[in-house]
Amino acid sequence: MERNMSEKLRGVIIGAGFASGFHLSGWSNTPEVEIAAICDLRKDRAEARASQFGIPKVYSSFREMFDNHKVDFVDIAVPPALHLEIIREAAARGYHILCQKPIAPTMAELREMIVLTENAGVRFMVNENGRHQPWFRKAKELINSGTIGEPYYTYLAYRRRMSLPVADFGDQNFFKTMPKLVIYELGVHYLDTLRYLYGEAKSVFALTHRANPELAGEEVATVLAKFGTVNAVMDMSWASLPASTVKEWVSYGPCVIEGTEGTLHLEQNGRFRIIRDTCEEQIEFPKNSEFLAYQNAIQHFADCLLTGKPFETDGKDTLKTMELVFGAYDAAENNRVYEVGKDISRLA
Amino acid sequence: MERNMSEKLRGVIIGAGFASGFHLSGWSNTPEVEIAAICDLRKDRAEARASQFGIPKVYSSFREMFDNHKVDFVDIAVPPALHLEIIREAAARGYHILCQKPIAPTMAELREMIVLTENAGVRFMVNENGRHQPWFRKAKELINSGTIGEPYYTYLAYRRRMSLPVADFGDQNFFKTMPKLVIYELGVHYLDTLRYLYGEAKSVFALTHRANPELAGEEVATVLAKFGTVNAVMDMSWASLPASTVKEWVSYGPCVIEGTEGTLHLEQNGRFRIIRDTCEEQIEFPKNSEFLAYQNAIQHFADCLLTGKPFETDGKDTLKTMELVFGAYDAAENNRVYEVGKDISRLA
Repeated sequence: MERNMSEKLRGVIIGAGFASGFHLSGWSNTPEVEIAAICDLRKDRAEARASQFGIPKVYSSFREMFDNHKVDFVDIAVPPALHLEIIREAAARGYHILCQKPIAPTMAELREMIVLTENAGVRFMVNENGRHQPWFRKAKELINSGTIGEPYYTYLAYRRRMSLPVADFGDQNFFKTMPKLVIYELGVHYLDTLRYLYGEAKSVFALTHRANPELAGEEVATVLAKFGTVNAVMDMSWASLPASTVKEWVSYGPCVIEGTEGTLHLEQNGRFRIIRDTCEEQIEFPKNSEFLAYQNAIQHFADCLLTGKPFETDGKDTLKTMELVFGAYDAAENNRVYEVGKDISRLA
Repeated sequence: MERNMSEKLRGVIIGAGFASGFHLSGWSNTPEVEIAAICDLRKDRAEARASQFGIPKVYSSFREMFDNHKVDFVDIAVPPALHLEIIREAAARGYHILCQKPIAPTMAELREMIVLTENAGVRFMVNENGRHQPWFRKAKELINSGTIGEPYYTYLAYRRRMSLPVADFGDQNFFKTMPKLVIYELGVHYLDTLRYLYGEAKSVFALTHRANPELAGEEVATVLAKFGTVNAVMDMSWASLPASTVKEWVSYGPCVIEGTEGTLHLEQNGRFRIIRDTCEEQIEFPKNSEFLAYQNAIQHFADCLLTGKPFETDGKDTLKTMELVFGAYDAAENNRVYEVGKDISRLA
């Protein structure tokens, strides 16, 4: 993309719910970008965000917003079932697209997004912030430099009491009606992060459970996946009273990465320890540095638009992450291992 | 069994290695029993145990010991590959049998043990002490009384640095040559304990890894099993530098049991917490109460011999545990879920 570097990239954002606060914090810390307008079906929420972040225009219809603003890109921060329709419209108008995860309820919808953005010649990045967490960037650097020898095991855990005794997901209560829930919404971060750390998975297996019968989907799941020689356990629950005595919270819960020469341990309070036979070190991340994940993903999007370099998580890359997400559901539903590539015809 | 209750049950023990210390502590605390003799191929080890526990006679051949002592029972505490030969001889002489876990390297050997003890009219108990841990007894009581509502998840973990940087299993260095290792030796406790807590499993899956290439078997494994509506994760490693800051140790590592109304948490230092929405309680177990597991299993064996009541873990019961052990290996080798009952023809 050729442009005058003194001009700012201009974008609009669709969705003023939970995620939009993190996005708009990110945009306001990205000097190359300005957000021209925001829209939400609930215009009061859009107005609140506009006033919070100094956005000049507010809409309740994204088409009306598109009609009134010729911009470089659109940031889509609405529930996944709405993505395709918006992406189709944005691509038709030649806007580059940054779209919230999980990208689509089916592989077929994601494939359609890839085709229509390619045909329209617009760039398309899935806003996968998990891999942009500062500690996962640091973990990859430490793994690649051999600090823990050959990695063979990774454990990612999340246990938080939200669906019991009464389901309350706050600003994300649309979760209650989603037929696929915790792997789709949370597990997708872990699966993408594991791909970032280790490359492509060979197979995935999962056991799921719905603890609150009023939910449409599962809020408890354990996913077991093979990434080369690394066995990864993703252990998730939105139902459980956590046993951890660590009361502070990071977005992604604790993480343990083990290798032949040591262990990396991210605690729930953000303490990052490098444990080896002979010594133990600790890396301090600034408080709330989890929110840098959004900031960093957004900065990556802007950088790639300005320089032409590829997105880490473009549509085609995300096909591999979503194959693991839907593969995990296929495994849980059929109580059968999903083999990457080989079993893809089983996915919708 | 009819006997004069004023007489003691008399037994002999085979094996003077690692496990025998726990067994002999157990026997010495069981007033209904006396141990008449001990034998070990390494007679010096047998002599050390004899002197430690006041056992009158020492042998290096179990047949010679059998020839010289007509007893009520034999306690077998040698590696699993040696069990069948000893059990055959003991049954032929009419001795009741308590035999260390894991009971046999194949389902076929266990089936043979069951047939030959039945034909000889002797009683046969597998010394499975995991389920006799005081905290698992307490956990079952709390689950059954509804303290945590409907249980849906259990996590059992063990991570200890023993096979790296140099493999050193101490008095159990025979582990190095065993083709099946951590699921067989450690996982068997978890699988039996889960059966004790929840009844029979529906299916089992596992990923395994050998971190030290000098070992014959795997020392890292994650096993995922379905017990009714409970999804159980058994996460084991003898290779890993543990991230836990709890430095004390219990035999079975930490355990988390989650239900709709609360969580039970056994920490590595033995602290047992009952966590509910409205309150948290703590149960204190005496220090080293993990060793009560051996004591309790042994007392159970003696009680059942004296009263005629059934063993919890007789040969037939243990077939169900070993099906899960070998099913987990079948799953790991073939990267395929093992379905209990349905897939049993795949096991040796």
